Amino acid sequence: MKTDAGVHSHHISQQFNIELEEIKSSMLEMGGLVEKQLADALTALITADSELGSQVRALDDEVNEMELAIDESCNRILARRQPAASDLRLVMGIIKAINDLERIGDEAAKIARLAMELAEQDGSSKGYVEVRHIGERVRHMVNMALDAFARYDAEAALAVAKEDVNVDLEYGSAMREMITYMIEDPRSITRVLNIIWALRSLERAGDHAKNIAEHVVYMVMGTDVRHAGLSSMEEQVKSEL
Amino acid sequence: MKTDAGVHSHHISQQFNIELEEIKSSMLEMGGLVEKQLADALTALITADSELGSQVRALDDEVNEMELAIDESCNRILARRQPAASDLRLVMGIIKAINDLERIGDEAAKIARLAMELAEQDGSSKGYVEVRHIGERVRHMVNMALDAFARYDAEAALAVAKEDVNVDLEYGSAMREMITYMIEDPRSITRVLNIIWALRSLERAGDHAKNIAEHVVYMVMGTDVRHAGLSSMEEQVKSEL
Repeated sequence: MKTDAGVHSHHISQQFNIELEEIKSSMLEMGGLVEKQLADALTALITADSELGSQVRALDDEVNEMELAIDESCNRILARRQPAASDLRLVMGIIKAINDLERIGDEAAKIARLAMELAEQDGSSKGYVEVRHIGERVRHMVNMALDAFARYDAEAALAVAKEDVNVDLEYGSAMREMITYMIEDPRSITRVLNIIWALRSLERAGDHAKNIAEHVVYMVMGTDVRHAGLSSMEEQVKSEL
Repeated sequence: MKTDAGVHSHHISQQFNIELEEIKSSMLEMGGLVEKQLADALTALITADSELGSQVRALDDEVNEMELAIDESCNRILARRQPAASDLRLVMGIIKAINDLERIGDEAAKIARLAMELAEQDGSSKGYVEVRHIGERVRHMVNMALDAFARYDAEAALAVAKEDVNVDLEYGSAMREMITYMIEDPRSITRVLNIIWALRSLERAGDHAKNIAEHVVYMVMGTDVRHAGLSSMEEQVKSEL
């Protein structure tokens, strides 16, 4: 009888582990889709490819549906399995991460819409270098954050938070340049504003990648490092190595 | 023995109810603080009151700390009490709502920073009417969303989502006006951009108020209405009346 119960609870916990791995995989799959959305939105903007922009926007429904489905799976696990400790932190980490991923997808869809508008407008490609450069950095941040999540790697998560500081600096300098350009050539205002919105969406997407990194630190170490500042996040992560 | 157990579990569940009410109250208290931040940020902008702007920014740390504390209480309840059904939905609703409240607080802090910049700049008060008007609507949305949460009122939550449509329309028309103004008077670009950022922050804050309203519908009805569109949200809410 005792052995039976042991086997039974072993089975339950194995089944539970499979369920946890499944929602984690679904989250990473959603992350892959969002990464692709972001990369394609940037390509659409730089190459004035309206068709690609429209594809990115069409993907948004799929990303939204994934968020709802994963969220529901997480709620079901919370209700049925009543996870504790690190299992609970994993489920809560996934619930928060998919929210940030969905918002990155929203920003990608906005960039795609701007790409379609810019493709219609004549004018210089002023600001494209900055969009491409910051866009690459942010795309890499999203990739690193998902990787850190997949590997429960708090140090890699810390690297994402550090990169966000660089993105914010570059964003600030690109914005100042765009504003100067508008003042020098007021006829460019409408077009440059579209570049400004794209830069802003990228900066936001970077913030969300940083949020995901913070969820990873919480998941791995059980410490909430949001709002704590980079140096205290670093201290926290290093203290456990 | 049976009676004892009954009394005991009654006590546990009563204690549990008290805990749930407490985190709900804390969330509403945090909401009140965020509402005040938003109202003060708008006043600071309209009246060029740098001192008030600086106070709003100082409040941000307090709001952030409240978010972390409430989040921790929610996680503790999930781990210890293992809530199910409507209790679980309440805890998850609170976890999501405080995230949106924190972001509304962020937007209020941004508006406060813009207020401080605008107070330093000479120039017309072009756009102030729009900021004040949209700001009032958004502040009211936040208030209604918190009220709907407090009273588990899905119909009131639906009204918040409807109001967001109006805010988005007014935002679009105010933005077009600001862009026209920049083109007509390029010397105003720097100043008008600050108004544009403030309008954008308000529009975002309205989105977050709508998110809170969607959490209320989920909490009350167990249906996730995010991404579903207003008409399907309305159908859902009306079907249960």
